[in-house]
Amino acid sequence: MRTIGAVIFEGFEMLDYFGPLQMFKNFPEDFRILAVSETMAPVRCSGGPEVVPDRCFADGAEYDLLLVPGGMGTRKEAGNTAMLSWLRQAAGHAGIVMSVCTGSALLARAGVLDGLPATSNKRAFDWVRSQSDKVDWQERARWVEAGKVFTSSGVSAGLDMSLAVLARLLGREAAGNAALWAEYLPNLDPDNDPFSLSGET
Amino acid sequence: MRTIGAVIFEGFEMLDYFGPLQMFKNFPEDFRILAVSETMAPVRCSGGPEVVPDRCFADGAEYDLLLVPGGMGTRKEAGNTAMLSWLRQAAGHAGIVMSVCTGSALLARAGVLDGLPATSNKRAFDWVRSQSDKVDWQERARWVEAGKVFTSSGVSAGLDMSLAVLARLLGREAAGNAALWAEYLPNLDPDNDPFSLSGET
Repeated sequence: MRTIGAVIFEGFEMLDYFGPLQMFKNFPEDFRILAVSETMAPVRCSGGPEVVPDRCFADGAEYDLLLVPGGMGTRKEAGNTAMLSWLRQAAGHAGIVMSVCTGSALLARAGVLDGLPATSNKRAFDWVRSQSDKVDWQERARWVEAGKVFTSSGVSAGLDMSLAVLARLLGREAAGNAALWAEYLPNLDPDNDPFSLSGET
Repeated sequence: MRTIGAVIFEGFEMLDYFGPLQMFKNFPEDFRILAVSETMAPVRCSGGPEVVPDRCFADGAEYDLLLVPGGMGTRKEAGNTAMLSWLRQAAGHAGIVMSVCTGSALLARAGVLDGLPATSNKRAFDWVRSQSDKVDWQERARWVEAGKVFTSSGVSAGLDMSLAVLARLLGREAAGNAALWAEYLPNLDPDNDPFSLSGET
């Protein structure tokens, strides 16, 4: 049984978060999903309802997988030292680190992506890039795998990235079943990025 | 400004719910998203965190759009008269009624789908069909539009259905933008159902 520490903060993007978690929740004997926040107060996602944390940073718990969503809330969290120091520590322990969309900006600010290739939302790329010049930012990628660190493109790209993580941890059949149960046609190629704004083809 | 009453109950499926809401939240001047539950107590989604209701049934509020997710929690809610009577009343007022996955079982039990074509999750179809013989159940459909009532297939199909609703209410360009901002390649054809289990082709 692996634990997933799935971070929430005010203004996180709902599909960034609940898309990947939808894929992992199909395997309750393999993964335990825990919403982790700075405090135990409910936090409101961008444009939607409040979500209640299961754990807070001060618990000192460690997680086997880490999930960091994006959303407009990342603009504030990028300057939140409590968030950044927790992410650095949690990512150091975790066997798999995942971000969706502008969640990679937080990992970059925390130093987790130093020296690694990584990607992010295409429409916030300039802001994300400005958060760290130690990251090899990839403008054309559905998601990027760099050892234990998976960063995905915007919003729905987290669905495809999470299936790649499932394939690595539980095998391709399990990942295929997760997609099937969600009636989702996955993009299986991390280099197939229909939303890149770069001029390359 | 239209209000969206997005119903939650114990064991609702997270992507059924947050997928469509992700698409609507891009237009905060057009839609106000409100999580509605039987009581104001937080409810836990299937396999994930607790969500806090913004409104409860007793508030007596009416909503312009209604969203009913599926999930294993529907098995219990299908016998919950408080849920079914609220759904019947809310659907009567709403200009648009939407269900995802086994959410259509609840609408069927509430009588909202009487005489209408409707669809549901392919792997729970027999159970859903058994909830009402007054519905023209469609085994092959990504989603079904029947006047103001939209029912979608399993889980991720709600993304495509919600874009069809956006196209009707705000126009195709707005729907296209919502998909683009989520870096999502939509299935635009309600009859294109790669997950049908029926023998028809």
